[in-house]
Amino acid sequence: MTERCDLLITNVHAATMDPSLPGAYGAVEDAAVAVTGNKIVWIGPRRELPDCTADQVIDGEGQWLTPGLIDCHTHLVYGGHRAGEFARRLGGESYEEVARAGGGILSTVRATRAASADDLYRKAEPRLKALMNEGVTTIEIKSGYGLDLDTELKQLRVARRLAQHYPVNILTTCLAAHALPPEYDGRADDYIDLVCNEILPAVAKEQLADAVDMFCENIAFSVEQCEKVIEAALHLDLPVKVHAEQLAATGATRMAARAGALSVEHIEYITAEDVAAMAESGTAAVLLPGAFYTLKETRVPPIESLRAAGVPMAISTDLNPGSCPIASLRLMMNMSCNLFGLTPAEALAGVTRSAARALGICCSRGVLRAGLRADMALWPMETPDQLAYEVGALRPAEIFVGGHHVTAG
Amino acid sequence: MTERCDLLITNVHAATMDPSLPGAYGAVEDAAVAVTGNKIVWIGPRRELPDCTADQVIDGEGQWLTPGLIDCHTHLVYGGHRAGEFARRLGGESYEEVARAGGGILSTVRATRAASADDLYRKAEPRLKALMNEGVTTIEIKSGYGLDLDTELKQLRVARRLAQHYPVNILTTCLAAHALPPEYDGRADDYIDLVCNEILPAVAKEQLADAVDMFCENIAFSVEQCEKVIEAALHLDLPVKVHAEQLAATGATRMAARAGALSVEHIEYITAEDVAAMAESGTAAVLLPGAFYTLKETRVPPIESLRAAGVPMAISTDLNPGSCPIASLRLMMNMSCNLFGLTPAEALAGVTRSAARALGICCSRGVLRAGLRADMALWPMETPDQLAYEVGALRPAEIFVGGHHVTAG
Ligand SMILES: [Zn+2]
Ligand SMILES: [Zn+2]
Repeated sequence: MTERCDLLITNVHAATMDPSLPGAYGAVEDAAVAVTGNKIVWIGPRRELPDCTADQVIDGEGQWLTPGLIDCHTHLVYGGHRAGEFARRLGGESYEEVARAGGGILSTVRATRAASADDLYRKAEPRLKALMNEGVTTIEIKSGYGLDLDTELKQLRVARRLAQHYPVNILTTCLAAHALPPEYDGRADDYIDLVCNEILPAVAKEQLADAVDMFCENIAFSVEQCEKVIEAALHLDLPVKVHAEQLAATGATRMAARAGALSVEHIEYITAEDVAAMAESGTAAVLLPGAFYTLKETRVPPIESLRAAGVPMAISTDLNPGSCPIASLRLMMNMSCNLFGLTPAEALAGVTRSAARALGICCSRGVLRAGLRADMALWPMETPDQLAYEVGALRPAEIFVGGHHVTAG
Repeated sequence: MTERCDLLITNVHAATMDPSLPGAYGAVEDAAVAVTGNKIVWIGPRRELPDCTADQVIDGEGQWLTPGLIDCHTHLVYGGHRAGEFARRLGGESYEEVARAGGGILSTVRATRAASADDLYRKAEPRLKALMNEGVTTIEIKSGYGLDLDTELKQLRVARRLAQHYPVNILTTCLAAHALPPEYDGRADDYIDLVCNEILPAVAKEQLADAVDMFCENIAFSVEQCEKVIEAALHLDLPVKVHAEQLAATGATRMAARAGALSVEHIEYITAEDVAAMAESGTAAVLLPGAFYTLKETRVPPIESLRAAGVPMAISTDLNPGSCPIASLRLMMNMSCNLFGLTPAEALAGVTRSAARALGICCSRGVLRAGLRADMALWPMETPDQLAYEVGALRPAEIFVGGHHVTAG
């Protein structure tokens, strides 16, 4: 490191999540962290800290420093709400029944098309702030409630605008292949052509998306249709992600792995063979326990196989108006333990290191290590196990994004 | 009403929760609410508002006003944490096994005895603030981690001190009969004598408790032992509540109903006969879906019977370090719908009108009505169904306690 740094944090314990360090948390007790610009330039035991001067020194008072949390799968820009559908599902209708009856995603599509960009922006703000207040420093936001060129662009522009105004990293994903829009009823292949030939190229031209996602499920698009979308995305140099096998086994996961997808999401119904394919391709699993909880699913993703195969298990909110209207990544950590049987350390890896893998940003984020971005949260806790255990009251004492101290407000 | 009032709120929709008004929410659309001192002096349709002048007028901008939320069952003053036990339970040990092995409640008792009053106060503050930030204006806090005279008094004094410093109503409950302290091992009757003859009288003398609670369960105290505690409490003019039949059917609920208890809590294992006894005595049910979720229980309280019998169903966090380390009453509303099958309107009744019943304060709180306390929350939502549906992002725009505008910070 240089002899001068911008920020020096001492008297902290660091849950680095660095897999090259020992222990499930890669913990460094009594650590020091030096930051210059937006990067960590040194991290290690305080007693080994080289001589240096810092413009600002923070006494961590024995608290725990973690990587800033990463919510790698959200749909947080949308119009309307679906409280009425929530009541209907409580009355016994399944998500699939609601969707087939024209409710579900399509009701949000109607509301999102009707909303102005300013409306969408204002409605998204409290969702973004709720996540930021929990120590989330990187958030992925998907489109997919437009399903036509103009509205898909509108949603993605709103996500980019949020990134300009809030001190948080936002990655955007074009999910135009989320559902079949009503005007294409019975013509799914034609809609896929629209996605591949018009929507994705326009999105790429305006640089509005960092990745492309699709919903490969019996109630959405077939494996063959999704293969076309993947081909179009890769042609535009956009990495891909797939909502796969949440409701039934379809083969989507193997197809995604073969295509080199960054991640597959939900995956309640995948088999051991699918897991092997993911391990081989380096595709991350994104687990969405809030949707599992809200939809009262009973089939748990094959955690034991994923763990044994060394597949990175990311955890995310899936924040959306239908299957997970819950803006809390910390609750998702808790649910991943209580509902899916992850350990508290796996839960923290799921919202840091593994979430970075799912977004293709593990070269810069998700771990506390020299050379990586200084996105960090300082927590008033005695052990990092508390992060998956305590919900609501345990809040970060300090949050840093790119080395800058931020408050979400 | 008088011609002058302190505060007038107009241009709101009111979910009054008044059962004498039509609809599940007792809703008054386009309402006005007048407040003088700490009370509502008029509420109704704005067009019927009598001529009056107000010192302060608030334009509600079409948002929804509800009674301030009431969390009627918490253990939020405690020492230590149980993140380690959380990890053990994820490994497959039951709550009962952990408790029998000297973990569980007794590990919190050790930490609470060892903590100073200042420590307990500081640790409780973020839990209290988390609830207040959700629009909770009344919170019950139990002792029960002391299990000796000094520590029970210490816990209750900390709860009273929180009430002095935070703009929130706090009711305290002595739960000395929570578990058998280790120094009374094998001598449960002797400990019950201590509770009845020393702890409760000392608590009453210092006016430290508004009610008395007890844990009537195979791993805690028998029905006969609890009857003694109830007798001692009633003799001191303190109303009673009972943690009953969470883990097994014991007859505790019928006993509590016969004794005129304000409420019974948990009650996963009660029968139709127990429900009838509650209906007859006017005893409220307190449902604790967060503990059900955390302990992975499978037996749901008999909602259909409670509903049919007209028993008030309150919903609470049970906020505690073992079975529900979740400081969110709004999440409990959501869980009461998703896990127990309540409707969104029943969930709101559960944290307002019915929670007031469970605390014996329904003459002053839990409903928006002239003559009752002006404890209120104003929500940026389109329908009160959203309160049970959306977690995390939907926060009150304004909170009023006793007519005063407050922020939790
Ligand atoms: Zn999704
Ligand atoms: Zn309790």
